[in-house]
Amino acid sequence: MFDPSTPSTEGCPFCTIASTHKPYDPLSPPPSIDPDITSPSSFIVLSTPLLVAFLDIMPLSKGHLLLCPRAHRPKLTDTSRQEALELGFHVRILSAAVARATGVEDWNVVQNNGAAAAQVVPHMHYHVIPRPEIRASGKLSESFTMFGRGQREELDDDEAAALAANIRFEVARVLAQEREGEGREIRGKL
Amino acid sequence: MFDPSTPSTEGCPFCTIASTHKPYDPLSPPPSIDPDITSPSSFIVLSTPLLVAFLDIMPLSKGHLLLCPRAHRPKLTDTSRQEALELGFHVRILSAAVARATGVEDWNVVQNNGAAAAQVVPHMHYHVIPRPEIRASGKLSESFTMFGRGQREELDDDEAAALAANIRFEVARVLAQEREGEGREIRGKL
Repeated sequence: MFDPSTPSTEGCPFCTIASTHKPYDPLSPPPSIDPDITSPSSFIVLSTPLLVAFLDIMPLSKGHLLLCPRAHRPKLTDTSRQEALELGFHVRILSAAVARATGVEDWNVVQNNGAAAAQVVPHMHYHVIPRPEIRASGKLSESFTMFGRGQREELDDDEAAALAANIRFEVARVLAQEREGEGREIRGKL
Repeated sequence: MFDPSTPSTEGCPFCTIASTHKPYDPLSPPPSIDPDITSPSSFIVLSTPLLVAFLDIMPLSKGHLLLCPRAHRPKLTDTSRQEALELGFHVRILSAAVARATGVEDWNVVQNNGAAAAQVVPHMHYHVIPRPEIRASGKLSESFTMFGRGQREELDDDEAAALAANIRFEVARVLAQEREGEGREIRGKL
């Protein structure tokens, strides 16, 4: 564990990911990150002192990712003020990056709190779920499987590693453009 | 309109709400706010210089509320950096406040971007949706109507006004405790 001051919980898969992946500068992401440092594999797309984001290992669509605090916070209301601010900031950055990496410009952000809300892993996380236009295929209702239920496919490890690297790269681009600009209209540059 | 520098869009219901409800100090909320200043009625639970939150007029559950920027931003990626930070901060504060006001401690946070993601009003908004424990009743699948579909009931105006006042009061309590404390563990005080 790189930071023994970060509380983590034995057996929590997200604490395992957070404790084995060090923060890096999101503006200079590593071209590759060993996904097999954890089991199951972890495909990191963002890693900051407070937050970590990675591909969902049972994605509802290509690019489905999770963003969570490093520290073990069961629900959104357990996060610190600073974590909540940074979650708000980075869920927007990751939304732009995943849209660029996948070419899919519609997406859901979902965050479940507690068993009655279908929270599966009790370490709070935002889902970012690209939604390809599927109305034409007549499969609309199928596509809205959510909350840990429904059709999900396991990640292919090679594809996932390439996709994660692409998303890290796009995060760096979005952040760089944000610094240049006035901090809005990032979507205009998708 | 209280602030002509805020871009708004003709015909957007959330722009109408934002432009007719001035910001107030969330630590000293007004005991009553006229809901009929807009049509349909608006039941405000938070109003800051950048953001506004109000009850969903077709709630999926008691306390279902929406949080959005005042300015017309179609998707999350259209928000400014400061709006994204404040959305992250206030979705957590509102989550705690609505849990206290309703007594329901499980909830979903959902934010839809684009038609393929079932966004209905093209002015970005977070849903905060309390999820009473409904497994016992065998109605789990019914309860997960989301994305503008499924069973929704119209608000009763008198109940909604009382509920909104209660949520405003709880927002003030949460913020006050947050100032006293270290900015975390607000849930421990639910």
